[in-house]
Amino acid sequence: MKHRILFLSIAVVTLFLCFTFQAYPQGSNHKIAIVIHGGAGTILKSNMTPETENQYREKLTEAMSTGYNILKNGGTSMDAVEATIKIMEDSPLFNAGKGAVFTHEGTNELDASIMDGKTLKAGAVAGVKRIKNPINLARLVMEKTWHVLLTGEGAEKFAQEQGVELVPQEYFKTERRWKQIQDILEKEKADSAKQGIVPEKHGTVGCVALDKFGNIAAGTSTGGMTNKRFGRVGDSPIIGAGTYANNSTCGVSCTGDGEYFIRLGVAKDISDLMEYKSMSVKDAAQTVIDKLTKLGGTGGVIALDKDGNIAMPFNTSGMYRGYINKNGKPVVEIYKE
Amino acid sequence: MKHRILFLSIAVVTLFLCFTFQAYPQGSNHKIAIVIHGGAGTILKSNMTPETENQYREKLTEAMSTGYNILKNGGTSMDAVEATIKIMEDSPLFNAGKGAVFTHEGTNELDASIMDGKTLKAGAVAGVKRIKNPINLARLVMEKTWHVLLTGEGAEKFAQEQGVELVPQEYFKTERRWKQIQDILEKEKADSAKQGIVPEKHGTVGCVALDKFGNIAAGTSTGGMTNKRFGRVGDSPIIGAGTYANNSTCGVSCTGDGEYFIRLGVAKDISDLMEYKSMSVKDAAQTVIDKLTKLGGTGGVIALDKDGNIAMPFNTSGMYRGYINKNGKPVVEIYKE
Repeated sequence: MKHRILFLSIAVVTLFLCFTFQAYPQGSNHKIAIVIHGGAGTILKSNMTPETENQYREKLTEAMSTGYNILKNGGTSMDAVEATIKIMEDSPLFNAGKGAVFTHEGTNELDASIMDGKTLKAGAVAGVKRIKNPINLARLVMEKTWHVLLTGEGAEKFAQEQGVELVPQEYFKTERRWKQIQDILEKEKADSAKQGIVPEKHGTVGCVALDKFGNIAAGTSTGGMTNKRFGRVGDSPIIGAGTYANNSTCGVSCTGDGEYFIRLGVAKDISDLMEYKSMSVKDAAQTVIDKLTKLGGTGGVIALDKDGNIAMPFNTSGMYRGYINKNGKPVVEIYKE
Repeated sequence: MKHRILFLSIAVVTLFLCFTFQAYPQGSNHKIAIVIHGGAGTILKSNMTPETENQYREKLTEAMSTGYNILKNGGTSMDAVEATIKIMEDSPLFNAGKGAVFTHEGTNELDASIMDGKTLKAGAVAGVKRIKNPINLARLVMEKTWHVLLTGEGAEKFAQEQGVELVPQEYFKTERRWKQIQDILEKEKADSAKQGIVPEKHGTVGCVALDKFGNIAAGTSTGGMTNKRFGRVGDSPIIGAGTYANNSTCGVSCTGDGEYFIRLGVAKDISDLMEYKSMSVKDAAQTVIDKLTKLGGTGGVIALDKDGNIAMPFNTSGMYRGYINKNGKPVVEIYKE
């Protein structure tokens, strides 16, 4: 009888432990970390006033600190990524949400995507014109439909059905971006050989986060390219190209010449190099940037692996970027060194 | 003096050989091969009349023989893929071009993509409504712009500028597809819980070809999902998901639950498994179909490697498929076996 009680007790305790560990498979003390970018391109200290540089540094710090606090308070990486990107979308400093670049026709057409590394579920929107925060809508696509990518007016119709408030196109307009497109159009008029010229491509925003449950999420949001035409869509809303997340490897968000990022499948390529070649996140990210350089493209990536290691390589003169890892101190960098 | 002439002669001959081999790096006698699919899904012999089965067999044979003859006559894999897919787009048997499925709103919205494995250049269109042959437009995007993906009305505007004739929506209409969407909408009306039900998803078409120069090309074209809404876009126009080609590994075209194919980045994953894990095309393709099954998705892929080896795995009851390899004999298969 004594033995039976002993065995029964052991069984109950074992079962209890089983269920506890199943609920928190990787423990609840996983390292947390967050990394962000605000676009890569010709960003030179010589062209920047101290005031402008400060504005970027402050907004990047505010955005990633918001996400980091969510993680610190036990929130999910999905919530952290969404909240962080929303702040950058709402800032006119970046080419996403308010402050997005103008198309050839003088409109703003926005793209965004988000991916959950735990489930490999993803959501994305492309070519939306009246969505204040495309990153929120991308998440709704992921959570409320079994689709991944919704486009154009259809995506806006879905937004309305979900109770998302639509904003007029004027909301996105900033004088800086408006002047930019007017200058380009005038140059095109004066010299038809210059058609399609795009002087400024950077400004896409992105974020990757790792929460205490060991779950990685990644997201990207953009206004695309200044003077874009023909419903052009770049890599930002393309899962595997501009955004990717997989708990067993890493999360990635990209910025740069979208066409090259699509052709190389940059975001997932970094994950595949880690999974199939056992590369570190740093080596994998640098390898893919080297491929980009070889093919003739420019840009950068942020990547964060399941252990909290961070990589932020780029082949341009600068990339707005920052991270907070386990020590909790925000680090912001802009130029190459 | 004699020695100098001898050395000079050797140098000239060597240089000549160098340039000759550079122009035709893998010789001009590379094995040629072509593989096609016309969609995967619930395709059972018990549901098929001999007449219908014959129609499919004949059209698949006609399509791939057209592509094969281009290859045999020294044409490029890009030309072979484009011509082969055009024939399937023009046939009402497949869910691409004429005979495309209807959206929830009763329209036809077409997607297509093409990729050149030699240059990694690619072109794609999504959500076009008035393009008779989306595969032709995808190639124009690749060759006439430096973009990869153009969408919706913008893509049609580009088509017009390129002199591509637009067709009215009625062109795509077939009684079979019209009846299909009416049946679904009636069921939805009768039972709102059945909203969004999609009984038939197969019919996407695709082709991969290897030409005598050792160049691989891949393409995919589709009408998407019956009853789709909100500007939904699947994997077919997404490079890396529905289509991929790389001379150093393989070419791939996919068909099935597009959302799962995007999340897994199926087409490029097959290439990555070959490049990074030294897998054969057969093992790589099967590995990715196993991942698809595990994640809960259905569909199939066709893949062709640089040596002419072919893989055509799928996890549904059937996939319209066929190939012609070096022996020149067309093989068509439909059911699991």
